[in-house]
Amino acid sequence: MARIVMKFGGTSVADVARIKNVAQRVKREVDAGHEVAVVVSAMAGVTNQLVGWVNETARLHDAREYDVVVASGEQVTSGLLALALQDIGVSARSWLGWQLPLHTDGVHGKARIKGIESDDVIRRFKDGQVAIMAGFQGLGPDARITTLGRGGSDTSAVALAAALRADRCDIFTDVDGVYTTDPRIVTKARKLDKITYEEMLELASQGAKVLQTRSVELAMNHRVRVQVLSSFVDSPGTLVVDEDEIVEKEVVSGIAYSRDEAKITLVRVPDRPGVAAGIFGPLADAAINVDMIVQNVSGDNQTTDLTFTVGKADLARAVQMLEQARSKLNFTELRPDSNVVKVSVIGVGMRSHAGVAQKMFSTLASKNINIQVISTSEIKVSVLIAEEYLELALRALHTAYGLDAA
Amino acid sequence: MARIVMKFGGTSVADVARIKNVAQRVKREVDAGHEVAVVVSAMAGVTNQLVGWVNETARLHDAREYDVVVASGEQVTSGLLALALQDIGVSARSWLGWQLPLHTDGVHGKARIKGIESDDVIRRFKDGQVAIMAGFQGLGPDARITTLGRGGSDTSAVALAAALRADRCDIFTDVDGVYTTDPRIVTKARKLDKITYEEMLELASQGAKVLQTRSVELAMNHRVRVQVLSSFVDSPGTLVVDEDEIVEKEVVSGIAYSRDEAKITLVRVPDRPGVAAGIFGPLADAAINVDMIVQNVSGDNQTTDLTFTVGKADLARAVQMLEQARSKLNFTELRPDSNVVKVSVIGVGMRSHAGVAQKMFSTLASKNINIQVISTSEIKVSVLIAEEYLELALRALHTAYGLDAA
Repeated sequence: MARIVMKFGGTSVADVARIKNVAQRVKREVDAGHEVAVVVSAMAGVTNQLVGWVNETARLHDAREYDVVVASGEQVTSGLLALALQDIGVSARSWLGWQLPLHTDGVHGKARIKGIESDDVIRRFKDGQVAIMAGFQGLGPDARITTLGRGGSDTSAVALAAALRADRCDIFTDVDGVYTTDPRIVTKARKLDKITYEEMLELASQGAKVLQTRSVELAMNHRVRVQVLSSFVDSPGTLVVDEDEIVEKEVVSGIAYSRDEAKITLVRVPDRPGVAAGIFGPLADAAINVDMIVQNVSGDNQTTDLTFTVGKADLARAVQMLEQARSKLNFTELRPDSNVVKVSVIGVGMRSHAGVAQKMFSTLASKNINIQVISTSEIKVSVLIAEEYLELALRALHTAYGLDAA
Repeated sequence: MARIVMKFGGTSVADVARIKNVAQRVKREVDAGHEVAVVVSAMAGVTNQLVGWVNETARLHDAREYDVVVASGEQVTSGLLALALQDIGVSARSWLGWQLPLHTDGVHGKARIKGIESDDVIRRFKDGQVAIMAGFQGLGPDARITTLGRGGSDTSAVALAAALRADRCDIFTDVDGVYTTDPRIVTKARKLDKITYEEMLELASQGAKVLQTRSVELAMNHRVRVQVLSSFVDSPGTLVVDEDEIVEKEVVSGIAYSRDEAKITLVRVPDRPGVAAGIFGPLADAAINVDMIVQNVSGDNQTTDLTFTVGKADLARAVQMLEQARSKLNFTELRPDSNVVKVSVIGVGMRSHAGVAQKMFSTLASKNINIQVISTSEIKVSVLIAEEYLELALRALHTAYGLDAA
């Protein structure tokens, strides 16, 4: 007997027929003798409609009232799934965020979970009752509904699994696991049986949309074994686990990419102390996140070229801010470029293997792909390349690192 | 300065544009210096969709989970209206049933209100804040969401007005008041300026859909001055008040009708003690409500004909039950008839005026309309007639009682 948390996203509960399918899936675990808690998202499309109404109603919205409106979506699904389970003879009840309660801080619209009171749920496990928790929502210190921000139901599920000391947290989604890279681009991409929290974290933050970054962090901190799997296909997914659980570590586990990058080059910036602060300070103040930064070695004329990346959505605003400060920063030219993509090679095995970055550079060079910016971390090497080379680069790297399916 | 509760039904908050109109209407009262609490229904169509999902999901549903699902509709409207008010500079916050809380008994799906904790709302009145309460919902003794049954938002509003000791409870709907009769049938129908609780109660239970019966009972018990008015037309509606407030009482205030009637005649039932109990006992056990009953004087052969009415929706079931008990009840024939309609003349003035019933009978006779069954109460005379005569009867009675508009 195990204790399991199962989380179903919006496409898995998109209509009543799918909710009934989910109930069957839950019943199977109950019949196998497991204690089961379920976390549900809003039915696909519902949250967008609710957010649309909020935006239509008020130009600037009170996040507390926004939360009242949008939290209703998960409320509906939790009630319907309880009914669907009861209808097939499984004892079940719904729990809203305020009922457990799931306590959060007071940052409405993107609250962080403080703790979950789960004694009642555990007590009812003994009577064979399935607990269905509305995802994405909690109770703030002001005794009002809070929501956790987009994708927050993943975080709800992992937090509940931690509170319940569950053996596993199964995240059911519309893909059947985590792949070595995007299978829509690389047909030889393989589904991974296991991946470490650290790798998953890099993948999530590098644009793989399988799990929300915060939920992976939370799983890592509380050592919650997470499984990503499909609610439509009946096969094991990918386990996200501690490094110790993976005996044969791959040097490289996956290759991620992000199209959400834009590059800015400032030509001939005076190379003196304080210049970087003068550039990046105002951007940080405006909540513009700067990712990769590269500064060329200074030439004879005491100037340097500075290149960095920002989110594509922030490019126009960043350019405007820099142009306004042109006289102060003293660069000769500003070159924005949104036709770039970031490709990242990720693997915990890098820690003990040399030459991983070198293989990336030589592979891209062999295909005549120019590397514009490089950044590295302990388990990741990222490069910025022209967007048109994305598919070519992904396929070449996938083969070079021995990731191709047999 | 007055303290006002305003209640807006589903058609008044059917979309964001109408919610913004409601906000303007509320703002006007706030600008006039009043303390305002608002009760809202779900956006038109939303409750039906939610109920549809529940029915699609489970054959027999757990009323506690039904409540979780359907209560979400009013939750959405309350949040949106708070946002719409804030957007035009009016301080406002939403209150869900569990937040005040509005306490109810534990009869999920049709709970009764036990009390409302309104101290917080009153405290915030002092700061100029409008309270927006989600209608139709409360908190049961099991700490779960309850709902009050269809039309329950009217009851929510009156209960809140009672708790707040409000000067008035304005019920905004899609009609502009209470009429002497259905203006779709009688073009000379007049809007009433005032009507007594007792008359409104009879009208509500006789098929006039303006206010839910329970809300009128509650208003009468707590002496809440209720006004029924249109959210689309800007004119005074009808005040539902205590008899003392009406100086010139009409003998007859209104003429109601109900198409929701079906007649059953049992021919030649043995006329002996216990027969009526043998017939109506099983119907009562099956929750079939019997309204009018008439028993003819017994003939020589010690039998009688018994006629009574049930709700149209219950007719088939009632007939089936009676046929099953035929050998025991010993009637010779069972005649069901669903082509009937009940017409009621209502007025507190009847108490002190003779001849009201006689005028009804003679008026109908003059139009050759046969009266099938009669029942009376202190302030009401009802007759059952063939459905085809409805319009003719309504117009003739309206004129006969001097109700026609000038």
